[in-house]
Amino acid sequence: MKVDNNDLRTIWLDEKEKVVKIIDQRLLPHKLVIVDLKTSDDIIYAIKNMLVRGAPLIGVTGAFGVYLAVLNNEDIKITCDKIKSARPTAVNLSWAVDKVLSKILKTDSYIEKIKIAKETAYEITEDEVQNCKKIGEYGLKLIKDISLKKNGETVNILTHCNAGWLACIEYGTATAPIYAAFDAGINIHVWVDETRPLNQGARLTAWELGKYGIPHTIICDNAGGHIMQHNMVDIAIVGADRVTYTGDAANKIGTYLKALSAKDNGIPFYVALPSSTFDWNIKDGVKEIPIEERNPDEVRYMEGLLLTPKDSSCANFAFDVTPRHLITGFITERGICKASEDDIMKLFPEKA
Amino acid sequence: MKVDNNDLRTIWLDEKEKVVKIIDQRLLPHKLVIVDLKTSDDIIYAIKNMLVRGAPLIGVTGAFGVYLAVLNNEDIKITCDKIKSARPTAVNLSWAVDKVLSKILKTDSYIEKIKIAKETAYEITEDEVQNCKKIGEYGLKLIKDISLKKNGETVNILTHCNAGWLACIEYGTATAPIYAAFDAGINIHVWVDETRPLNQGARLTAWELGKYGIPHTIICDNAGGHIMQHNMVDIAIVGADRVTYTGDAANKIGTYLKALSAKDNGIPFYVALPSSTFDWNIKDGVKEIPIEERNPDEVRYMEGLLLTPKDSSCANFAFDVTPRHLITGFITERGICKASEDDIMKLFPEKA
Repeated sequence: MKVDNNDLRTIWLDEKEKVVKIIDQRLLPHKLVIVDLKTSDDIIYAIKNMLVRGAPLIGVTGAFGVYLAVLNNEDIKITCDKIKSARPTAVNLSWAVDKVLSKILKTDSYIEKIKIAKETAYEITEDEVQNCKKIGEYGLKLIKDISLKKNGETVNILTHCNAGWLACIEYGTATAPIYAAFDAGINIHVWVDETRPLNQGARLTAWELGKYGIPHTIICDNAGGHIMQHNMVDIAIVGADRVTYTGDAANKIGTYLKALSAKDNGIPFYVALPSSTFDWNIKDGVKEIPIEERNPDEVRYMEGLLLTPKDSSCANFAFDVTPRHLITGFITERGICKASEDDIMKLFPEKA
Repeated sequence: MKVDNNDLRTIWLDEKEKVVKIIDQRLLPHKLVIVDLKTSDDIIYAIKNMLVRGAPLIGVTGAFGVYLAVLNNEDIKITCDKIKSARPTAVNLSWAVDKVLSKILKTDSYIEKIKIAKETAYEITEDEVQNCKKIGEYGLKLIKDISLKKNGETVNILTHCNAGWLACIEYGTATAPIYAAFDAGINIHVWVDETRPLNQGARLTAWELGKYGIPHTIICDNAGGHIMQHNMVDIAIVGADRVTYTGDAANKIGTYLKALSAKDNGIPFYVALPSSTFDWNIKDGVKEIPIEERNPDEVRYMEGLLLTPKDSSCANFAFDVTPRHLITGFITERGICKASEDDIMKLFPEKA
């Protein structure tokens, strides 16, 4: 994506140096720093500590982790398990790692393994780029329809966390329709949920949208209900970390609250995701999707600033699950479907 | 309330110095600083800039503001209007100021006016203390019932923002039943919503509860839905800034989202308030209660730390309105009632 007239992705391989390059997203929006990942340990560190985050991006990062592990001649199965357990909620990570692993296991040649790992990581990368592009095209129609109904008046879109190109490779998932609508000249404005505790909305989504020139306003996570109640939101679009084949969607903590409010106010609530985010094995999202609990200090401190009494306990649930009955539909690379097993299976008949 | 073995209130009059003393709540939890207010301008500054906050406390502060205005021989009607407009959402401010004003207008004597203003401000103060105490007694029954049903297992209570003694004079509104339950030896634990942007939960409620020795855990505002979904909350109790006679409740931004989630998960959702918080003139809370928009820099910065890209817009809605259908009941100094005009009027027949 264009950042100050340079084309930038969230991750790429420096083939000469055999190094994976990423943006250290912890430092945005104030500093744009590129970091080198040289080993699978670097990859695991980057995923765990959220230098990279976002379901599609951690999938791709995991895939490049397998490549580095092969290159460094590690015990590949052990390393793959370590990478997969770096973060528990997003299913893309296991999906991508297993995809590379299954391909390299087909050969015994070291040279061949490296070649296959690299090619598969590239393939996953480009697939995710294309998926996001298509999500943008399908989602664009939703925004265009609202714009037509409003006679060209500003379409107000709410999004939570960052499901932007920073969570992917390009375009993003939830933001892909937003970029497509902006490119199509549709009058839009985006409400950006701050997204505590790590402020991915205020830091990352706002940065992305700002660099692209898209009008946006940052609000506290508390404010979404009020603006929905007062006709200030036309559509909500969020990303996902794992979606069951029945239509329950795990996404950044707080998503569920926005979905409840959208439902209460008759506002369409869409979840945008590539097929790699579907979990084809889990039926009941609320009961079965593992919800990561992160370090309470992420709640307690903000860049070193103590926000709470020093003896108070804090808890840090990283995701929540929005039950299917609150979701208007899924925007995928194959098209849009309702949040039901039937409708999902119609789009993905090979999984039925 | 006891703070490190001293009895402390949020506001009091130093009769000798003719100065109103308050806690500067902006500096908690890290510093406990007492500030002198000597003029009605000081009072207005303290209310606007949230040195004092919370519906009952700003009411009492406003009442003492009228006393200072009388003492300093100001044009009393102009000053009262200024005080009342210092913050728009909480109805207690106008209610308290008008109560003092109407009494002092009955005499022409300067000496008599001072005496009446002081006495009325004291009376409002003590009434609010008694109201909170009674709210605690009525609310205690709710918590006791849950404790019995759970065979003495921990009762988990969620609260939003600070409707504690720091928002009142003593006991608090939402916290009064919590203190009463703790004093009664009931096993409780409180989930404290951080409450962005000004973190009154993480700063003030956590500080209060900690000083009293009540087990509590601070969570981001985003987390309430998840913990309600997973049986980690037995009851939610919040305060209010204005409640219509029909049962719609304005409270700190984000309250509405928690009420939606409580409803979705069958969790009782109570609003605790003294009668001074009822607005007997407004029917439709969502349409008619004015919602204060505060400086966007309260969202953009935290103690000087820039949280967003510097060119991004921010919006800062301070309150939202929870419609009556999401509220299980009101806990008032007269007892508990359902969130309907009928039930409210049964408790306050003189308003019918």
